Amino acid sequence: MTNQKVFSKQTINPNVLATNFSVRGPIVVRADEISRQIRSGKASFPFEDVLFCNHGNPQELGQKPISFNRNVLAMCSAPSLMDFEPIHQVMPSDVISRAKSILASIDGGQSGAYTHTQGVLAIRQKVCNFIEKRDKLREGTVTSDRIFLSDGASPAIQNCLKLLIQGENSGIMTPIPQYPLYSGTIQTLGGKLVGYYLDEDNGWSLSVEELERSYKEATDAGIDVRAFVCVNPGNPTGQVLPLESLKAVVEFCQRRRIVLLADEVYQENIYGSRPFISFTKVVQDMGLTNSFEMISFHSCSKGYLGECGRRGGYMHLSPAIDQVVIDELYKICSILLCSNVDGQIMVDLMVDPPKRGDPSYEQFDQERETILASLKRRAQKLVKVFNQLEGMSCQESEGAMYAYPKITIPQRAIMEAQKRNLAPDAFYCTELLENAGVTLVPGSGFKQKDGTFHFRTTFLLPEDKIDSVVDRIRKFHENFMIRYNDCSDLQGGLAF
Amino acid sequence: MTNQKVFSKQTINPNVLATNFSVRGPIVVRADEISRQIRSGKASFPFEDVLFCNHGNPQELGQKPISFNRNVLAMCSAPSLMDFEPIHQVMPSDVISRAKSILASIDGGQSGAYTHTQGVLAIRQKVCNFIEKRDKLREGTVTSDRIFLSDGASPAIQNCLKLLIQGENSGIMTPIPQYPLYSGTIQTLGGKLVGYYLDEDNGWSLSVEELERSYKEATDAGIDVRAFVCVNPGNPTGQVLPLESLKAVVEFCQRRRIVLLADEVYQENIYGSRPFISFTKVVQDMGLTNSFEMISFHSCSKGYLGECGRRGGYMHLSPAIDQVVIDELYKICSILLCSNVDGQIMVDLMVDPPKRGDPSYEQFDQERETILASLKRRAQKLVKVFNQLEGMSCQESEGAMYAYPKITIPQRAIMEAQKRNLAPDAFYCTELLENAGVTLVPGSGFKQKDGTFHFRTTFLLPEDKIDSVVDRIRKFHENFMIRYNDCSDLQGGLAF
Repeated sequence: MTNQKVFSKQTINPNVLATNFSVRGPIVVRADEISRQIRSGKASFPFEDVLFCNHGNPQELGQKPISFNRNVLAMCSAPSLMDFEPIHQVMPSDVISRAKSILASIDGGQSGAYTHTQGVLAIRQKVCNFIEKRDKLREGTVTSDRIFLSDGASPAIQNCLKLLIQGENSGIMTPIPQYPLYSGTIQTLGGKLVGYYLDEDNGWSLSVEELERSYKEATDAGIDVRAFVCVNPGNPTGQVLPLESLKAVVEFCQRRRIVLLADEVYQENIYGSRPFISFTKVVQDMGLTNSFEMISFHSCSKGYLGECGRRGGYMHLSPAIDQVVIDELYKICSILLCSNVDGQIMVDLMVDPPKRGDPSYEQFDQERETILASLKRRAQKLVKVFNQLEGMSCQESEGAMYAYPKITIPQRAIMEAQKRNLAPDAFYCTELLENAGVTLVPGSGFKQKDGTFHFRTTFLLPEDKIDSVVDRIRKFHENFMIRYNDCSDLQGGLAF
Repeated sequence: MTNQKVFSKQTINPNVLATNFSVRGPIVVRADEISRQIRSGKASFPFEDVLFCNHGNPQELGQKPISFNRNVLAMCSAPSLMDFEPIHQVMPSDVISRAKSILASIDGGQSGAYTHTQGVLAIRQKVCNFIEKRDKLREGTVTSDRIFLSDGASPAIQNCLKLLIQGENSGIMTPIPQYPLYSGTIQTLGGKLVGYYLDEDNGWSLSVEELERSYKEATDAGIDVRAFVCVNPGNPTGQVLPLESLKAVVEFCQRRRIVLLADEVYQENIYGSRPFISFTKVVQDMGLTNSFEMISFHSCSKGYLGECGRRGGYMHLSPAIDQVVIDELYKICSILLCSNVDGQIMVDLMVDPPKRGDPSYEQFDQERETILASLKRRAQKLVKVFNQLEGMSCQESEGAMYAYPKITIPQRAIMEAQKRNLAPDAFYCTELLENAGVTLVPGSGFKQKDGTFHFRTTFLLPEDKIDSVVDRIRKFHENFMIRYNDCSDLQGGLAF
C-alpha cells in the first residue's frame, strides 16, 4: 500500500479542480484570518480593523432587517406565541394574520415539514400575482406550475445549467465581466463559457454587434450555444439596461434560438434615473409571451431585504418553456426534496409586503426607504471618489450593490504580480488588504477585457465606515501608484 | 425557423433525463392530485382521504416540533422580542441565553447574513464537541475546519459525489436497496452505481463476501471504484448494523483503498436492542483515525427533531481526508455561498440540546421521549401486520423511519404491470393508491434483487391513522392476491 491518499488531487474531478470562485477566494480567506488575529490580539497590522467590501452581504455589515418580515418569521417558528395575550402589544395584527395564513398553507401546518418540491403552492401563487402586478400582465399569465422556490437564486441557476450543459461543446453566453457563479458552475459542469463583452466606456452597455461577434466565434469553434445569461441590474458592473438593450437581447436569443436566463436579483436596487424593466414585461410587450423561452430568477438576499442567510428565492419559467423542462427540473430539485421553508416564507414576504393602510405599513415603508436612500448615497460617494483618483475611473452605479472601477496598474506592479504568480489586480487587492485592511474582489475573478484591470467593491458598509473605506483606498492607491510608477525608484521600499 | 422548442428533450443533458427519484415520482404526484381532488370535492374515490406513507416527513403528519428549538429560532428571527418584558413569562431563561449566544456568534449578529461557507464557526465547534462526546474521543480529535454545515445531508452528499465522480468509469458502491439520492445523483453526474446486496433474510445485514463480489465485478468491468456508501441505520431497510459489520466495512474500504461515505442521519431513530455506533467511533477504536479516509453525514430532518423543512445538517471529514479535499469542497460550496442560517441554528440545537438541570430540560426530555416511544410502537405494529399477511414478509425495523416488506406479486399481476409499462411493485403501489388511498414507494425505486418486490412505508402517521393504514393495506392486499392469483378468474373485475 502506498502512502498516497485515496481521495487526492489525482482522483478529484478535474472540472472541480479547474473551477474558481473569487468572491470567496484566497483574498477573502486571508481577510478573515487577519480579522481574527486582530480580534484575538495575536498580531498587529497597520490598521485597526478589516473593512469587508467584498461581499453583497448587507446584514453582516449592519443593515437592519425589515421588522415585519422578521416578526412573521418568528411567529411561524413558535406559533404558540400567538396564543400568548401580551404578544399582541408588540405584534401588529397583520403580523399575526400573515403568520397564520402562511402556516395554514403548509401541509401539516408546520414550517419544519418538507414542502412540495417546487415550494408551498400558496406562496408560488403569490409569486405569480407579484410578477403579473409588477409587469402589468393579464391575470393568469403566470402560473404556479412554472414557479420553483429555491434556496436563493444561485442553486436555481445551477439547476438550469445542469439541464443545459451536455458536455464540453455546450456553450453558455455570459457577460464579461460576470458574477462568478456562472463561470464557476459552467466549469464544474464541464461546459464552455462564451463571453460577450460589456462596453465599459458606454456605462457597461451591450451591443448587438458584440453579441453576434461572440456567437459567431463560438459556433465557428464548434460550440453549441444553448443559453444566454443577462444580469440586470449588473453584477459586478452596476448598470441598469435600457429598454432597447433588453429588446435587442430578446431578438438576439430568438434569432439564434437560445434560451434566455434572466438574472434579475437586484431589481429593487435602483439608484439612478433609469427604472428596472423585467424581461417578462419586455417579452410581453413584444407579443412573444407564448413563443419566447426564458427563465428568470429573483432572490430575498438583495433589494431592501438583504436576507442572504435565509437562502430564499425563486425561478420563473416562461409559458413557452416546454413541459419536459419543468418535469426534469422537478426531478433534479426533488433529489434535494425542497428549498428551506423559512426561505420560502421570506419569498412570501418579499412578493407581498405590507400595503398602504395595513397596520405595519408605515414602519415597513420607513425602514425600506431608509435602507434604499442610504445605499444610494453610499454608491454615489464611492463612485465620485474613484473618479477623482489618478489612474482610476468608475462608471456610475445605477443599480445592484457594487461599484466596479477600472484601475491603471503600472508595468512594474504587473511584473511584481507575475513574480508572485498573481493576476495584477489580485496583487493590487492583496496589497490593499495587507497594508490598509480593505477587502475587495479583483476584477480577474469576474473576467475583464485583456489588459484592463478592475476591482469590485460593495457599498454596504455603514455610512460612517464608508468614509474610512474611501480614505484607506485613496491613501493606498496613491502610494501604490508612486511605488510602482515606472519612473520611481524601486529601491527603498516606500512605506504604505 | 422550426416549431420545435429550443430547450427540449433533445437538448437536455441526457444524464439528467436518465435520472430517477422515486420518492417524489409519479405515484406521489398522483397522490397529491387525488388528495387535492378530494379536498375540493371535485371527484370521488373509494376512500375519504389519502394517507401519505411515502415520505420521511414527520411534521407534515402531525409530529410536534421540540418547543425549546422553535423558541430559540423565534428569538433569533425577532431579537427585539427578547427586550419585551412579558416574553420572559413564556420563554425560559435558557431559550433567551441560547438565542443571544447564537446571534453573537454570527458576524453582524443577524441570522439574515451569509455566514462562512462552512457555516458559523461556533456552531461547527459545537458539532466537534458533540461528536467527541458521542464517541468518547479525546478532546481536539475533531476540528472545525473539517465540519461543513449543509442544507440537510443531501446536498453535502451530492457535493462529495461531485468531487469523486470523474466520468462514466467512476464507481460508487451503494447498498441495494438504497436511498435514491445516491442512484439519482450518481446518474446525474454520469458515474456508475456499483451495487452490493444487503441480505434480507438475515435482517438486511451485509457480508464481506458480497462486498468483494461486487467490487470484483466492477473492477473486472474496468470501473474505478472510488467510494463506498453505508447507510446506518438503513433507509429504506431499517436495520441497525452490528459492530462486526461496521468493522468489516472499514477493513474492506481500507483494503480496497476507497473512501467511506457514512450516512448516519437516522442515528437517533433506534427502536430495537442494538445501539447505533458511529463509524467515527469504530475507526477510532480500530486505531485508524489518522489513516482512514471517511466523510460522515448527519441531519436535523430525522431523529426526534424532524425539522425537514429547515434544511439543516452537517458533514464531517475524518482527519485522514487530505487538505485538498477540504479546499475543493470549500470552493464548490462557496459558489452557493453558505447553507441557510436557520438550518445552521437547528444544527446548534441538535448537537447541544438542553441538559439535565436546565430550565427547559424537563419539557424537552418529555417531548423527545414521547416522539421516540410512539415511533417505536408504530414501527412494531406495522411490521407485525405485514408478517401476518399471506404473500408478505417484513424484517424487524430496528431504526430509521421505515419498514420495507417483501411482497409476492402473482404472475398475472406481473403481466398486467408489463402491459401498463410499470414495474410490478409500482403497479401494486399504484393500484393501492387508486383503490385504497395509501401512498407507498415501490421497491423498484430503491433497487432490489431481481425477481423480488417490495415497498417502503414510513410509520410516521399519527397512531390513530396507523390503524387505518393497516386496515387499508390488509384489505387491498388480500383482494389483490385473490384477483391476480394464477388460479382465479381474470374475468369479472373483482372490486377492491
